[in-house]
Amino acid sequence: MIKVIMCGHGDIACSMKNSVEMIFGKADALLPITFEKGECPADIEQKITPLISEHDEVLIVTDFFGGSPFNVSSKLALAHQNVEAITGMSLPLCLEVMSNIDDLSLSDLANYLVKVGANCVKKFNKAVILETEEDFI
Amino acid sequence: MIKVIMCGHGDIACSMKNSVEMIFGKADALLPITFEKGECPADIEQKITPLISEHDEVLIVTDFFGGSPFNVSSKLALAHQNVEAITGMSLPLCLEVMSNIDDLSLSDLANYLVKVGANCVKKFNKAVILETEEDFI
Repeated sequence: MIKVIMCGHGDIACSMKNSVEMIFGKADALLPITFEKGECPADIEQKITPLISEHDEVLIVTDFFGGSPFNVSSKLALAHQNVEAITGMSLPLCLEVMSNIDDLSLSDLANYLVKVGANCVKKFNKAVILETEEDFI
Repeated sequence: MIKVIMCGHGDIACSMKNSVEMIFGKADALLPITFEKGECPADIEQKITPLISEHDEVLIVTDFFGGSPFNVSSKLALAHQNVEAITGMSLPLCLEVMSNIDDLSLSDLANYLVKVGANCVKKFNKAVILETEEDFI
């Protein structure tokens, strides 16, 4: 069973788990970790490492590429065969995690998230709608 | 001057602004809005509408496509010429907002975010690194 450690600056991971649960219901697979002001990368490592040993397969989802949470999770993914690390945490991505966690292997889940992640950001294209409305005038 | 209304389920937008400020420093252009359990789309509209009238140009950034925050913001973007709406809020996206808000027009900023948003989700590719290490053995 895959567990998902979420880690980002501040308490963003905790807030995001709460948001997921507002939409999806109970999400016990998500394990949020804070990274508070004044903490250093070693603090993140100290929080994540015990969770890795407790679980068979772990996906670490962090906030952004190049940040301390991602750097630490990459180091841990390299050191542990049962760990994959991705970055770019968002609510649509976490909802995709919850929808697919029971059906995909750890590696397939990570690859799938990168694929769907490319389409998470969308703009409401009002120009198209306004043009369409003009057609009916 | 562009203002950015952030809105997502729960208090995710407030947490995200705090995370941005941990990294970027003061981010007065970001105006986070909560969408709590028990509230309805009309509540979101009631919170956002006064902010639109207070500012010249407004970008609304919401959590995910099809959710109430995005649906309300799309309706408001259609009704107000000075409003654009995008979805897929994440920390890398908000950092891109802060890095470009003073240099781009409202429309260009929204389009730019969709473009960079496609690359926000990345996987740490440990297979490549392990293969490279093997080359040096």
